[in-house]
Amino acid sequence: MNQILENAMIEGLVKGFARSPLERNRLQEADAELIRLPGTDMLLALTTDSVVEEIESGLYTDPFLIGWMTVIVNASDLAAVGAEPLGLLLNENLPHDTGSDFISKLQDGIRAACSACDLYVLGGDTNFSARMQLGASAVGLITGGQPMTRLGCKPGDYLFGSGRFGSGSGYAFVQFVAARQQPGLTFPYRPQPRIREGRLLRDFASCCMDTSDGLLAALDQLMRLNSVGFVVEAGQEELLDPDTLRIANAANIPAWMALAGPHGEFELVFTVPPQRVDALMAEASVHEWKPQMMGRVVERPGVWLRLNEELTAIDTGRIRNLFVECNSDIDEYFKGLLLMQSDLRQGG
Amino acid sequence: MNQILENAMIEGLVKGFARSPLERNRLQEADAELIRLPGTDMLLALTTDSVVEEIESGLYTDPFLIGWMTVIVNASDLAAVGAEPLGLLLNENLPHDTGSDFISKLQDGIRAACSACDLYVLGGDTNFSARMQLGASAVGLITGGQPMTRLGCKPGDYLFGSGRFGSGSGYAFVQFVAARQQPGLTFPYRPQPRIREGRLLRDFASCCMDTSDGLLAALDQLMRLNSVGFVVEAGQEELLDPDTLRIANAANIPAWMALAGPHGEFELVFTVPPQRVDALMAEASVHEWKPQMMGRVVERPGVWLRLNEELTAIDTGRIRNLFVECNSDIDEYFKGLLLMQSDLRQGG
Repeated sequence: MNQILENAMIEGLVKGFARSPLERNRLQEADAELIRLPGTDMLLALTTDSVVEEIESGLYTDPFLIGWMTVIVNASDLAAVGAEPLGLLLNENLPHDTGSDFISKLQDGIRAACSACDLYVLGGDTNFSARMQLGASAVGLITGGQPMTRLGCKPGDYLFGSGRFGSGSGYAFVQFVAARQQPGLTFPYRPQPRIREGRLLRDFASCCMDTSDGLLAALDQLMRLNSVGFVVEAGQEELLDPDTLRIANAANIPAWMALAGPHGEFELVFTVPPQRVDALMAEASVHEWKPQMMGRVVERPGVWLRLNEELTAIDTGRIRNLFVECNSDIDEYFKGLLLMQSDLRQGG
Repeated sequence: MNQILENAMIEGLVKGFARSPLERNRLQEADAELIRLPGTDMLLALTTDSVVEEIESGLYTDPFLIGWMTVIVNASDLAAVGAEPLGLLLNENLPHDTGSDFISKLQDGIRAACSACDLYVLGGDTNFSARMQLGASAVGLITGGQPMTRLGCKPGDYLFGSGRFGSGSGYAFVQFVAARQQPGLTFPYRPQPRIREGRLLRDFASCCMDTSDGLLAALDQLMRLNSVGFVVEAGQEELLDPDTLRIANAANIPAWMALAGPHGEFELVFTVPPQRVDALMAEASVHEWKPQMMGRVVERPGVWLRLNEELTAIDTGRIRNLFVECNSDIDEYFKGLLLMQSDLRQGG
């Protein structure tokens, strides 16, 4: 786990803290913290996430999107453990000179996302600050049965996604690169809540994680936690968000790179034992949802993608560390990925 | 309520949000949000608070204190509703160049405060940011009986404090003013958790609030919420933190101003019906705690302090709005208070 710089940093930060006897999961084992409620058979699901680097880097500029994402990044963690949402607490740190129109659109984004997620704003805290930073904490309940965690998949399980991947990268590419050449160009980035899908999956999935840091980062983390590998057999047409695929093709960028970007699309990636697949598909179709079958869990650790009709091993650990090593510099990161692409070609 | 600029601002921010059917309290009615847990007789107490302006203004510079206060500001809200702490989620937004020694002392402060509060760190979120901002959300449980809220005091009730007041102002005065003249001067500011006192008070208090924004701001808010007044009969020797009183006297500043500073000391202020006072004092003494009797609740709205042996009406609303009107400028705020002092003299 600690070959990944982010994992090592987080372990360093928490190593001195005592562990609650009520906490069911260990560090990194679930998207939300799972806390036993004394005297009941219920679990509380708790998570907190902020929109900080996305604002500072200029990735998010639209106030509605900032509000929307402040809710979605937290709701997505509740979805990944199959919790029923109770509500959230907001943290708004706003510059003194923030205009009332900006605040109004920000609140609109929060309200719209809460409504889409069946989440209530329960409270919050507002401060004035030189830098805008938005954050929230979400609370959910798990009653009866087990929660989903990142642990539990076995070789032979099927690998699924709740939707298509790559739109976080597509949006970042347009915002940081393409819009420089074509001012006014926009990309329709609006991750949808997967709360209902998460609650349904709790009866079927052997493990689950959201793709807040992109698909390859999620598969890498699940690989390390479960000591397994993932063979993604689906082709890029089936895997990728169509708008992102179109943009990658137009810019002549290898489409798999959209799965490597650290700005995710907040879908769920999950595994299902073979004997539960038919039941999952039947139940999902009742809810007019079609999980995307992507591949299989294998014994040998690693992540393989189908590139040019060939299953190709991807060094997902190298990709995850690249962004940290680049000090979050987008251009450097992009160069690093292109270097990996040329290594892949040489390897193939 | 909305004559107070901060109250009006918060109402403006939340007015578009739907209210959860599980939320027991309305806006401003309790220090923590009180959420009914479906299928149980338990309430979840939720709160979130950040240390942002305190860092940006230079009020907090010591990393241990920043960590300590990040926990205390949240624990204090759990204390004020009488909740049993479950734990907290941390939000750490740190500049890229934060030194490992600074981080280590910050984490030490968090750990020491958690230990003092019987709180566990359950999880968190870490970001890199141009500005340091620390925050947390705390979760507590209330099982059996009623929670304490800010509502419920009646004329004739006794007014109490959990300890002495003013150290938040004493510290701010030393940090911002006195240390300019005497470099190296420090003030021992380390608010203590009142979690145990809060749980004890739940059986006795008719209302309770913490003094996160200072004593006068708390009394002002309780006055507005309950449509009552508070006559503080205790003299300044009984009310004020001894270090703060000494500093005020040495600097020839009216000591009551230390109760007006918006940087609080995180004590509890609470009211007790006359017939419950003896039982409270007996129970408190078992726990080696002596609540400070301060005065009475009266029918007529207002806040009166004993200044120069005379009960003097204090315009607490004017004080609370002053800090916002000064755009948080400490020097301007101090000038505004001195102006009020001269008005008080003329009035007397």
